[in-house]
Amino acid sequence: MLETAFPDRAGALPRAPIQFYFDFSSPYSYIASEWVEAVAARHGRRVQWHAILLGAAFQAAELKPPVAYPIKREYVLRDFERSARFAGLPYRQPDEFPIPTQNAARVFWWLQAQDPARAVAWARAGLRAYFTRGVPLNDAAQLKQLALESGLDAEAAEAAWNDPQWKARLKAANDAAIAAGVFGAPFFIVDGEPFWGNDRQQQIERWLGSGPFKGMV
Amino acid sequence: MLETAFPDRAGALPRAPIQFYFDFSSPYSYIASEWVEAVAARHGRRVQWHAILLGAAFQAAELKPPVAYPIKREYVLRDFERSARFAGLPYRQPDEFPIPTQNAARVFWWLQAQDPARAVAWARAGLRAYFTRGVPLNDAAQLKQLALESGLDAEAAEAAWNDPQWKARLKAANDAAIAAGVFGAPFFIVDGEPFWGNDRQQQIERWLGSGPFKGMV
Repeated sequence: MLETAFPDRAGALPRAPIQFYFDFSSPYSYIASEWVEAVAARHGRRVQWHAILLGAAFQAAELKPPVAYPIKREYVLRDFERSARFAGLPYRQPDEFPIPTQNAARVFWWLQAQDPARAVAWARAGLRAYFTRGVPLNDAAQLKQLALESGLDAEAAEAAWNDPQWKARLKAANDAAIAAGVFGAPFFIVDGEPFWGNDRQQQIERWLGSGPFKGMV
Repeated sequence: MLETAFPDRAGALPRAPIQFYFDFSSPYSYIASEWVEAVAARHGRRVQWHAILLGAAFQAAELKPPVAYPIKREYVLRDFERSARFAGLPYRQPDEFPIPTQNAARVFWWLQAQDPARAVAWARAGLRAYFTRGVPLNDAAQLKQLALESGLDAEAAEAAWNDPQWKARLKAANDAAIAAGVFGAPFFIVDGEPFWGNDRQQQIERWLGSGPFKGMV
């Protein structure tokens, strides 16, 4: 890539990829997954995608999902759909929500070991299927069907999500995310700087474009 | 005001003010307090400010502040300061944080009953004092000093925050906010639509400018 010919502010070559952590059951991750590559590309960066289980990150941080609190739940269900519309994306709140997503995430890591681009394509396919068509990614038969539609070998995908190797790989990804300070999704790390939430897009853009914001104090 | 000559989308005349809920101890409320009037003015709206106690809203929604969770705390302390810089505002994390803010809030409601503009000026003075100079608004002597600096009768301000009338007024404001669905701060209600968080500024701007976003589903 051309931009690797230029040193970044720290003088490192090439510029570090954006670390992007998502959960297949996170609406704000779905929204972010639709812009993160474009934002990165505008600034000569790549994106390293990490499928994680948000439940594990919540547990480590002693947090609960926003929909666990009735009053907040009502708001965020409205905000999921509104934020998607704001971003120009289709959205349909899945009937079953949230769902366990370990199988979809293990397929991600299985693909990632072969070809990161295919893993990213799978991530997008899974997020779109769940959040625009309500495909329950926790249903084995429907997840296999989605794998098939995505050009994968469905039997091999199922074998992967039942394989201790890919279970362990997802566990390692969760542990690494937690160790990096991830406590929600989407979560981004840009040159060591953590950004939590789809609504940090503008800050990420400016950080990528001109570095840390100047202080006024 | 000129814009009141035109009906809004609902045909109502004049356009409803933006409801803006804040707590004197909320960093994101401080940031929002610095842009909410300008955003409203661009769209021919006024702002109705509501000083509330976030603790009461959290309790009603069974929530805790983000700094109550150690891992999240580390992130949000960084994000407070970064988000202020992003907005071009000075910020200094107060040593004591969060603090009880009922006295500052009662002074707000006492002023509001006399002249809403003076209440808004007090809100800004309090938020700026706490978040840029670390003035502990929970310290009676320093709060009186701030009242004096703000052109108020400091003794009368102290009498107000000890007066059952203004205690009751704040309680009523909290109850009304909770009844309106407020569970965090800053919180905005625009023509019945709730927006939570300083980071909903863009959505609020678009909503004010062109109404509800069009769906794509």
